[in-house]
Amino acid sequence: MQTVMKPIDKKITMRKVYNFSAGPGMLPEDVLLQAQAEMLDWHGLGMSIMELGHRGPEFKSVAEQAEADLRELMNIPANYKVLFLAGGASIQFAMVPLNLFDGRQIADYIDTGVWSKKAIAEASRYGIVNVAAETQHQDHLAYIPSQDTWATREDAAYLHYTPNETIAGLEFNWVPKTFADVPLVADMTSMILSRPVNVTDYGVIYAGAQKNIGQAGITIVIIRDDLIREALPYTPSLYSYELQAENNSFYNTPPTYSWYISGLVLAWMKKQGGVQAIYEINKRKAKTLYSIIDTYSDFYSCRVRADCRSLMNVMFYLKNDELTPLFLEQAHDRGLANLRGHKVSGGVRASIYNAMPEEGVNLLADFMAEFVKKYG
Amino acid sequence: MQTVMKPIDKKITMRKVYNFSAGPGMLPEDVLLQAQAEMLDWHGLGMSIMELGHRGPEFKSVAEQAEADLRELMNIPANYKVLFLAGGASIQFAMVPLNLFDGRQIADYIDTGVWSKKAIAEASRYGIVNVAAETQHQDHLAYIPSQDTWATREDAAYLHYTPNETIAGLEFNWVPKTFADVPLVADMTSMILSRPVNVTDYGVIYAGAQKNIGQAGITIVIIRDDLIREALPYTPSLYSYELQAENNSFYNTPPTYSWYISGLVLAWMKKQGGVQAIYEINKRKAKTLYSIIDTYSDFYSCRVRADCRSLMNVMFYLKNDELTPLFLEQAHDRGLANLRGHKVSGGVRASIYNAMPEEGVNLLADFMAEFVKKYG
Repeated sequence: MQTVMKPIDKKITMRKVYNFSAGPGMLPEDVLLQAQAEMLDWHGLGMSIMELGHRGPEFKSVAEQAEADLRELMNIPANYKVLFLAGGASIQFAMVPLNLFDGRQIADYIDTGVWSKKAIAEASRYGIVNVAAETQHQDHLAYIPSQDTWATREDAAYLHYTPNETIAGLEFNWVPKTFADVPLVADMTSMILSRPVNVTDYGVIYAGAQKNIGQAGITIVIIRDDLIREALPYTPSLYSYELQAENNSFYNTPPTYSWYISGLVLAWMKKQGGVQAIYEINKRKAKTLYSIIDTYSDFYSCRVRADCRSLMNVMFYLKNDELTPLFLEQAHDRGLANLRGHKVSGGVRASIYNAMPEEGVNLLADFMAEFVKKYG
Repeated sequence: MQTVMKPIDKKITMRKVYNFSAGPGMLPEDVLLQAQAEMLDWHGLGMSIMELGHRGPEFKSVAEQAEADLRELMNIPANYKVLFLAGGASIQFAMVPLNLFDGRQIADYIDTGVWSKKAIAEASRYGIVNVAAETQHQDHLAYIPSQDTWATREDAAYLHYTPNETIAGLEFNWVPKTFADVPLVADMTSMILSRPVNVTDYGVIYAGAQKNIGQAGITIVIIRDDLIREALPYTPSLYSYELQAENNSFYNTPPTYSWYISGLVLAWMKKQGGVQAIYEINKRKAKTLYSIIDTYSDFYSCRVRADCRSLMNVMFYLKNDELTPLFLEQAHDRGLANLRGHKVSGGVRASIYNAMPEEGVNLLADFMAEFVKKYG
């Protein structure tokens, strides 16, 4: 296997690389150390957890503890089911309409970016999508229009939105309201567990794990009991919430190791003091970076209105875009890795999920200020 | 987290536990050691492979090398596409009919056990299933009927079979023939890479990874080009072979760590000398156990006719079933773990996938002989 990226300078010690990737992203060092220590011998059994049958008591205990920790961290009420499903959140783009269209074959979607659009495209294959609102722009700043301008429908089967859009760095700092019989559905992949959420505001919450929960390959679904019902007739069995719920996500072999890593991350979060404590850190981290951008507004620009700026994905541009490659290269040489913006947006993106330590953000902020002094 | 199984005696060193689980199953020690060593620092990057974006050059190199090694090991011709898809083989139970029904809405299935039946149940939701043959019994022995007795149809969209059934321990030692325009589809989950296979005999081969390829959560599909075509209209996007093939399995975030582990296992297989070399070992391993069963036929019984006995899952019973719990307990105390048969079959099952060393099988054989001497 060839390594294409050049190795980091050896003087930078192992975990002093800060990985700003939008996902799969950085994981807590403690989690990786524990996974490493247990790799050949989980809890004295002489086997790796990835070698154990999913129906044995050992993996069952891992699975149940992960669910219990998630319930505790998010304060999930008993009338919500938690599923751990194989694959990424994109599967939910189909599962949501296949399971929630219930005679009402129309759903409201809010389009705030690339991920919303993907959800809309898939749902459109199974029913009518009403795009009730979309990102607006004013003074070259993107923003989420206030709800009083939305064209939501009382007869919608559900309202779907994406609380955080990773590519534009756009985030809701409020929760949409819905009509009485219209459940709210959220793709929380890029912001779950980053801030407190009132689960009862939602009918369905789903999130791929590879940003704030663990490794790619597993998706968490939190669904209110009354929404678990017969799916559309041609729904593949594994896409049925009902079947998955009846089987506690064990209808077939689940992605056991991904589930285990999720469990380690959730336990780590509890040790950090839970979601509220992490939220305080996340706010500080984001503020540090946006402050630098605003302080040097002749040099950097953020194209998102202040109240819609993402806590998780700080997206910005160098006003002189020719300097962007140099910025990325010099950042990388300091162990500030994977800051390149998505190919559709260009620019610079600092994804600062829960596992990104504050010192990584501070180093990036220092670097950004120095870079202005050299090239501004 | 509570460990339910009692820890192995500490005098047994770490990897001297032999895990006979039917899957997820044992992995090669070298693979686990490498994964452990690289956990926090993959190839000097200062990051774990599970923290890296799937579209970066590092993960791409891992993904491509895994495919190249699989192609080499199985001698896969260029007109076959290889996909690495999230989830288990059960997803293929739906993907196969959703993608291969092409106007011909009937397919032949061979029912040789629990896994065949699951595939049949799912396919029946999308078209007509003709069960062309099923397991037969003679003298209390299960066997696969010879093909001249099968009721296959010339107008079938495909013929599906399960070369190895893990629960009964029943395996084809021959390859079915099909009519000219009827592709052969095989669920090779429990025997892929255990013996040489002529890929050109097949239209589609699929296999969940958690037995001979790696960890649960990823499934390999090997599909002939001409079978990649538009799926039935209501097929979820991620269930379309066409879309997955066009995107080289990167339509959405793939299960990157599972893919990486598969790559380590495939590289390990090459070091062992490839499929033919491993097949020779597998034959010896199976022969060792079946010989003990046959030698002590007053005490043990195998309920599968000799020519249909599985190389991978050696399924047997103690004639005095009351001794089975004691057998399992004493085996476990010797580091011979997870030998309990599936709950639908009872009995004892020794799953001896590629990663099970010969010494593990020899220890089990010795134990079986000693157990007869004590209790026979």
